[in-house]
Amino acid sequence: RIVAACRRALAPQDYRDLVVLVTAGGTREPLDPVRYIGNYSSGKMGYALARAAWERGARVTLITASPLPPPPEVEVVRVQTAAEMLAALEERFAGADIVLKAAAVADFRPVAKATQKIKKGQQRELFVHLEPTVDILACLSRMKERQILVGFAAETEDLLANAGQKLHDKQLDLIVANDVTRPGAGFGSETNIVTLLFPGGRKEELPQLPKLEVAHRILDAVTTLPRFPGRSAGPEREE
Amino acid sequence: RIVAACRRALAPQDYRDLVVLVTAGGTREPLDPVRYIGNYSSGKMGYALARAAWERGARVTLITASPLPPPPEVEVVRVQTAAEMLAALEERFAGADIVLKAAAVADFRPVAKATQKIKKGQQRELFVHLEPTVDILACLSRMKERQILVGFAAETEDLLANAGQKLHDKQLDLIVANDVTRPGAGFGSETNIVTLLFPGGRKEELPQLPKLEVAHRILDAVTTLPRFPGRSAGPEREE
Repeated sequence: RIVAACRRALAPQDYRDLVVLVTAGGTREPLDPVRYIGNYSSGKMGYALARAAWERGARVTLITASPLPPPPEVEVVRVQTAAEMLAALEERFAGADIVLKAAAVADFRPVAKATQKIKKGQQRELFVHLEPTVDILACLSRMKERQILVGFAAETEDLLANAGQKLHDKQLDLIVANDVTRPGAGFGSETNIVTLLFPGGRKEELPQLPKLEVAHRILDAVTTLPRFPGRSAGPEREE
Repeated sequence: RIVAACRRALAPQDYRDLVVLVTAGGTREPLDPVRYIGNYSSGKMGYALARAAWERGARVTLITASPLPPPPEVEVVRVQTAAEMLAALEERFAGADIVLKAAAVADFRPVAKATQKIKKGQQRELFVHLEPTVDILACLSRMKERQILVGFAAETEDLLANAGQKLHDKQLDLIVANDVTRPGAGFGSETNIVTLLFPGGRKEELPQLPKLEVAHRILDAVTTLPRFPGRSAGPEREE
């Protein structure tokens, strides 16, 4: 906490008083009362973004589906499913300046949830029927006014093509592309290797860095966007 | 760490030099490189057991599928799937005195794992074919010689009947029955409410307690088993 306070005192306060929403972790879609379909997102990239934005003076709300303990400095909303994450975002979207969608949201969910635990003895095989979940980024794009919307693309093939398509389809202001199959990148790792894609085709490849450093580079990139609302400012101390 | 060391110095050393294996967390069975079928086990009950056994002088190995940071005092083996958990147990079982199976092991897994991330655009619905996983407790029961085997039953209905059946079928020395639907019990909670079932029909209901206290009560119960190898001892200090 002392380290965090020092980092904040020394950081540029270019996000001062901006309202930043960060999503983190992997959503969980229940199969029955004890089982779910999840993904390997640890929440660490989103937690790093929340902390970095806080260091730079933002008012941060972290909407997380991760079981890891969140950074103590920021407001935290815990959710499980894609639908809960969308509801938490919708409630806060109108008041937000910047939305950083680092969570890995389930694309599919079971059509039905069993009311009791499915017992092993009952069956030798099981077929689970999945349907697409709500498309959170598409919903937010439709609600977008002044908000800057930053998306993430975690891919295992055709990384830049898939990420560029998503940037365009969801009308994002920036997308962070992440090949989760590379060692030192992606889920659970303490470091990440990402490429930033901007509308219009500009791209910026970052080297392997600790996730908190990646977070600051992403926040740096956001300040260069034409729609960024903050005034650029040097290091300032809190009153 | 200082608190942990003090607790150890003051605890009865009735597990001194016993080799204790603890499993914790929920296993994850991959659907594709980014998704899995998991369960809501947090790993906290297993972590509490590992710490409690360490406090009482045991040599503890914790085999965990939980993403939470494990207690720093014990040897840790990280696994993801039921098959990996079984392999880690088999490797260490012959040298173990007591095995505490607190992990929630997947009962079903996808028959096939997709080699690339399944994209949302590709399909409007999905059917996942699941098969039963390997039965870890049954495998360990067959290997059992001097080992004391403690199982857990996390249920949402017919708790004691299901737990008693499992105690008998898997030839356990003790089973900890846990209705995960009760508030203050089960997955993710800081407390637990369990009933201990012994072979022969004896049972002991515990009140709602912090998980570390529940862990000590379970270890107390293990010392009453006729096959318990340790000598009972009062509080002793480490040399």
